[in-house]
Order: sequence, then structure tokens, then C-alpha cells
Amino acid sequence: MKLLIILAHPSPTSFNAALSDAAAHEARALGHAVQISDLYREGFSATAGAGDFLSPTDSASLHYQSEQRAAALGGSFAADIAREQQRLLWADCLMLQFPIWWGGPPAILKGWFDRVSAYGVTYADGTRFDTGLFKGRRSLVSVTTGGTPQRFTDDGGYGPIDRLLWPVQQLFLRYLGYEVLPPQVSHAVARQDDDSRKALIRSVRERVGELMEGLSKPSPVPAPEVLLESVGERRWDSAG
Amino acid sequence: MKLLIILAHPSPTSFNAALSDAAAHEARALGHAVQISDLYREGFSATAGAGDFLSPTDSASLHYQSEQRAAALGGSFAADIAREQQRLLWADCLMLQFPIWWGGPPAILKGWFDRVSAYGVTYADGTRFDTGLFKGRRSLVSVTTGGTPQRFTDDGGYGPIDRLLWPVQQLFLRYLGYEVLPPQVSHAVARQDDDSRKALIRSVRERVGELMEGLSKPSPVPAPEVLLESVGERRWDSAG
Repeated sequence: MKLLIILAHPSPTSFNAALSDAAAHEARALGHAVQISDLYREGFSATAGAGDFLSPTDSASLHYQSEQRAAALGGSFAADIAREQQRLLWADCLMLQFPIWWGGPPAILKGWFDRVSAYGVTYADGTRFDTGLFKGRRSLVSVTTGGTPQRFTDDGGYGPIDRLLWPVQQLFLRYLGYEVLPPQVSHAVARQDDDSRKALIRSVRERVGELMEGLSKPSPVPAPEVLLESVGERRWDSAG
Repeated sequence: MKLLIILAHPSPTSFNAALSDAAAHEARALGHAVQISDLYREGFSATAGAGDFLSPTDSASLHYQSEQRAAALGGSFAADIAREQQRLLWADCLMLQFPIWWGGPPAILKGWFDRVSAYGVTYADGTRFDTGLFKGRRSLVSVTTGGTPQRFTDDGGYGPIDRLLWPVQQLFLRYLGYEVLPPQVSHAVARQDDDSRKALIRSVRERVGELMEGLSKPSPVPAPEVLLESVGERRWDSAG
């Protein structure tokens, strides 16, 4: 099987980077193919805008989804978006590795959702949840936190981790059709000693085994021409 | 009173921009001072990194919070961060205006949370929720959606809007100490006719009245030297 890991942390010596490395090693040791999108190292741009399209149809009044549709049919996404889309379509399994900042992923990863997951490429009209194009593929969210486990309760103020991750797990991953495994949470990593960190790394390796195991080869996502053929010249009347 | 509006939409002709304009007009008509951070127009950078600090103490292995602490005490944040921090500290009320993309704010707004809200400036050790530094200030999240209201239910797949907004409202706004009004939601704006849009704009104007009304002048947020004096030379042992 094929695993794509998205790493979103500015420091190559971070614990997030160590977890991403460990996950890649484990998957390769199990015989799987792995690609890593190290968003900071690759200088991935976070902000969706007119520059995302090589030949925007209307740059005066940007309608992002219309431009995505045109770029999907014309193969005219900016290079970093096209590269990430290829990786995403290639992968049977997806692992997101990031620190929780202000209750969610760092902006660079939110920007990866915003820019890479495009109308006509990863979804189209009526493809969501059970009809999502990534049905049959599997995903794992692996996060680090500053806070201790008791913060992630109703009494602790932050609420359960699944509530924080609802936008990522439900509105992004499940929306696209992914099966979502329970999240892997490395709590309060700044306060862990070496033994605890090693245990957390072992735990992530086990989760990677679970992520890749017993999955049937999923169907490829249809090409934009096929996805969009029934829709015709769709018109949006607002930029939202 | 003083209102800061954060607008996060790439198109100046968007409905989000119209709502932001209407909110500013209404607040001024009521006699309040208004600033708008139009993140796209101002070219705000979304991605937290070493470039956020004019004189990073350790650029080889970036520890973001340590750098924030040094920049808070040394007045050495990058210009766009320093400007946004001044606006945030100036404002008694905060309104966030954005479209829901993949269940949350566009990356440019998430980056505003990540970069502007800095250790030593907007929070310090033990300042959160009831002890948050923005206690006595009030906030309103105003969003547009692609989906109809029925999508934002458990049966509709997206879940109630407050669940999507939990990271923004609880982990960012309430964490900092803000009172959070119920969110203002303009549903399915691409499908609304002119009359419906006018009604949505009127509704936002009313919410601005509610946001600014009957608030006592809040205490200023203490300066970094005061905030950090009890903490001393804090050491983090991990980049997370």
C-alpha cells in the first residue's frame, strides 16, 4: 500500500518531525511505499488566492471554486498544488502529523486543505461522506499538544480531543470519504522525559501498522473530465 | 468603544467583504471607533516561522514560544505581527468575518491566530479562560457557509455550527478571556437572492449593536515586562 504523511512543524528537530520519521520508517519496514510532504521544508504556501492558478479566468473578482474547476480541466494549478494533489491521489492512506496550535492545525496545514483539496479534483457535486471520492482509503490524525490530558476534558476547558478535531476529521477527511482512525495524541510533549518520548514513538509505530493493515486496494479517483462531465457549465453567482 | 474587524476573504467583491463593510458602518454610526484588518488586502503572511522575529535567538532549532517571549520583551516582532498586536490590544470588541472552508477559517486567519496571539503579549503562564487577559472584552464570529442550514445538524453531516467553531470560540477567543456572543451565520450565500442578502446584512448590523452595547471599558492588557516578571528565565525543553 501507499502512505502519504503530511508534516506541519517549522522545526526539523521537533518531536513532530521525529514522529513523522518513525511513521515513515515503520511503514517502509512493513513493505509499504511512503511519501512525506514536509510543508515547512518544501516552502508550501498557506494562503489560497489568485496565484494558485496559472491562467485565472477572472482575476478581478476571484471565485475560488470556479477557478479550481477551470484549473482541474486545464491542468493549470500552481506547481505546489499540482504536486500535492498527485501525492494525495497516489496514496491509499493518509497521516496528518501536526502540533495543536489554538485548537487546530497550524495555518500551513489548513492552507494545504484549502488549496490542495480542489473542486473537480478531490470532490465534485454530491460527493461527500459515503459518496466521497476517497472512499476505501484510510487516515490517521497524529497530534502533539502543549496541554496535559486533563485539559482535554469538559472540566479542563479544551474539551475532548475529538471535539477539537471535528473540523479536520469530519469536515475534511470524512467529507472526502476517508475512514478515520481514532486520533493519536502525544500529550504535553515538552514535559516528557526520554523514556516517555520513546514510548510515544513506539505507539505511533503501532498506529501506522493499524493504519496500513488489512486495507483493500481502493479505486482510483476519477479524472476531472469524468467527474465534471455531468455538471456542465456550472455557474456560481457569488464569491461567498 | 473600539471595534476591530478581521476580514479573511480573497475577493474584495465577496459577500464577506460586504458584511465587514456593513459592520464597520454600523459601529461608526453608533459612535464607536473601528479598525479593519483586511488580511488579504494587507498581504498578511499566514505561516508562523523564524521570519516572525527580527532577531531570533536560535534560528537553527526554532522554538516558537521562546522566540515569542524574547520578541515580546525586546519589541522585535516582524512588522505585520506588531501591527496586528497593537490593533488587538487597542480593541474592546473583536469581530471575525470569514467563510467556512473545510470546517474552519481560511488559513490566512488561522495564521493570524498562530502569529499574532503571542506568549508574553496576549497570554502568559496561567492566563486562560476566567483569568484570560482579554477578560471584559467581547467577540463575535460571523461566518458565511456554502451549505444550507440542514447540513449543520447531526443528520446533515457537518454538525451544529458551534461544534465546528469550538476551536475558534473556545480554544482561541474564550481562552484569551473574551466573552463570545452566539455566532452570526449567513448560510448558503451563493444561493441567496438580493432580498435575502439584504436581510443578512441587516442582521449583521443588529449583531454589531449587540456586540458593542452595554460593555464597560475593559482594563488594558499588561505590558510584557509586567506579564513575564514573575516567570523569570523560563526554559522549554522541546519544540513540540
